[in-house]
Amino acid sequence: MRGAILYAPGDVRFEERADPKILKPTDAVIRTVATCVCGSDLWDYRGINPVEQPTPFGHEYVGIVEEIGADVATLQVGQFVVGSFFASDNTCPNCRNGYQTNCLHREFVGAEGCQAERIRIPLADGTLVATPTRPAAEHIASLLACSDVMGTGWYAAVAAQVQRGDTVAVVGDGAVGLCAVIAAKEVGAERVIAMSRHASRQELARGFGATDIVAERGEEGAARIKELTGGIGADRVLECVGNSESMRQALHSTRPGGNIGFVGVPHDVGIDGQELFFSHVALRGGPAPVREFLPDLIDMVLSGRIDPGRVFDLELPLAEVAEGYKAMDERRAIKTLLRP
Amino acid sequence: MRGAILYAPGDVRFEERADPKILKPTDAVIRTVATCVCGSDLWDYRGINPVEQPTPFGHEYVGIVEEIGADVATLQVGQFVVGSFFASDNTCPNCRNGYQTNCLHREFVGAEGCQAERIRIPLADGTLVATPTRPAAEHIASLLACSDVMGTGWYAAVAAQVQRGDTVAVVGDGAVGLCAVIAAKEVGAERVIAMSRHASRQELARGFGATDIVAERGEEGAARIKELTGGIGADRVLECVGNSESMRQALHSTRPGGNIGFVGVPHDVGIDGQELFFSHVALRGGPAPVREFLPDLIDMVLSGRIDPGRVFDLELPLAEVAEGYKAMDERRAIKTLLRP
Repeated sequence: MRGAILYAPGDVRFEERADPKILKPTDAVIRTVATCVCGSDLWDYRGINPVEQPTPFGHEYVGIVEEIGADVATLQVGQFVVGSFFASDNTCPNCRNGYQTNCLHREFVGAEGCQAERIRIPLADGTLVATPTRPAAEHIASLLACSDVMGTGWYAAVAAQVQRGDTVAVVGDGAVGLCAVIAAKEVGAERVIAMSRHASRQELARGFGATDIVAERGEEGAARIKELTGGIGADRVLECVGNSESMRQALHSTRPGGNIGFVGVPHDVGIDGQELFFSHVALRGGPAPVREFLPDLIDMVLSGRIDPGRVFDLELPLAEVAEGYKAMDERRAIKTLLRP
Repeated sequence: MRGAILYAPGDVRFEERADPKILKPTDAVIRTVATCVCGSDLWDYRGINPVEQPTPFGHEYVGIVEEIGADVATLQVGQFVVGSFFASDNTCPNCRNGYQTNCLHREFVGAEGCQAERIRIPLADGTLVATPTRPAAEHIASLLACSDVMGTGWYAAVAAQVQRGDTVAVVGDGAVGLCAVIAAKEVGAERVIAMSRHASRQELARGFGATDIVAERGEEGAARIKELTGGIGADRVLECVGNSESMRQALHSTRPGGNIGFVGVPHDVGIDGQELFFSHVALRGGPAPVREFLPDLIDMVLSGRIDPGRVFDLELPLAEVAEGYKAMDERRAIKTLLRP
């Protein structure tokens, strides 16, 4: 089979690789129906995370079950499945508490690269969720979004404890930030302020339920949020970037007693204990336990309630994965969908 | 009147000072019935916070209203009152959200020094809570504790969102940590683990409802908490110290998806964003909005349900305030109560 390999910053190749096999009786192998490029892949593509050796890449996927290990009990060959980027047994105490990305037996599904024609999924029973029937073509993109960005946006809202009637600000207008707008609205926020300076992303944010747009960034952005909220700040802020500036912007945009859900993987982010203390703001972050939300998110997609697949504004054959990265790196695309 | 003044590290004097007066129509002046020395006063006493000039000290108090300004509507001369260390109007948006220590008009009551015979209380209507009648002598110490340490311990439990059935670990065995044990138990924790290596404090913690004692500190302490919780950590951890080691101990003692309430004023505490992210732990801290909890805490004291006054293990005449600091500095006393 063929798949994407990152050789060095800016150098993604589509190459012949060994077919994945069942290695443990709890594994499944799926045939990829769609995969994509993640904003977090760009940290490596841009050389911010070091690329030590040629590395299979990608961690988002939907597909058809091709083969299952002897201990896989809940899945059948031929089913359409959506899964998380972390494999989880879904039975350990951390999974039962709703934090499957901290499963005591977790494995990173992306380790073998999901931008490929076939993927081995460890702990398949705990990781994959099958749709009731083969989904219609129009739902594929949104189901793929649930595999990471929609699940991550949803977690941002959950981690920030968004409540009905809240004013929510979203920092970051990438695919995760846009999905966080959907989540905030679905959870019942009255007002959703998207922080974005790009017309196309502003438009998408409005389409997803944003009631206000703030184009300013940093301290100016935080000041604008305060202006919009009677001087005190937003009830909840969803931080979907992961650098020092975005975290500071989030902290300064939240009212005393409010919450930040932070889902951008932090890069060199230090939080001053005393500043956090006197802010009275609560912080919770982490890699989203997508598996926890998948059943509900899949239902919402199939019933037409949410359509996070609209974050994909570029679709390419998997063989053109290199162009998919390039377009996102150059901000010509929000997110690239790839079909084998 | 006379009151305590901190001249330099280790140098507290009891001296004649100007009588407090009504400066604004929203002020009250109270005659102190009891005051005390706070663990946070020791940061200055020990020279860790700089002492720039002779400074009136203390911020905890109960007393009798002696005089009220023209705009004070809810209090009468002669009433027994308990108040918070921050004055608040109790009407601004932050107060209405339950964060009176972030009141838009807050003032630090301790600025003029509460270890004194009389105290001016700004924003008296929003700051002071009167008891229904003059309390019995046996309740004075516990009511005084509500003015800070019990309110702060309560906030630790609220900030950590302690729920019925939880396993809660308390880092710090000072007066606040001991009151946090009371709070965790009252909110419904099934198991309360007090982290303490001092026999007298361990005993008091057990008396307040601790079910387990862990004497180890730092990484060893966190490892012991994990051992006691099936390998995953406590549901909620109440951090009642405020240094890097105690914060790290708290973070490493909390299960993924758990919460830390941190109420020790942080001194040089930096939090690594990536570590916090991958922990999935929520953090909320701050100066406790004692005013929010005072009505309930006063009821609990007067009904005999809680007796936080037991944290005072040394009682002195206010004139001997210097010895009160010394005893706490040398850890001969947990907390010193002072009576004019």
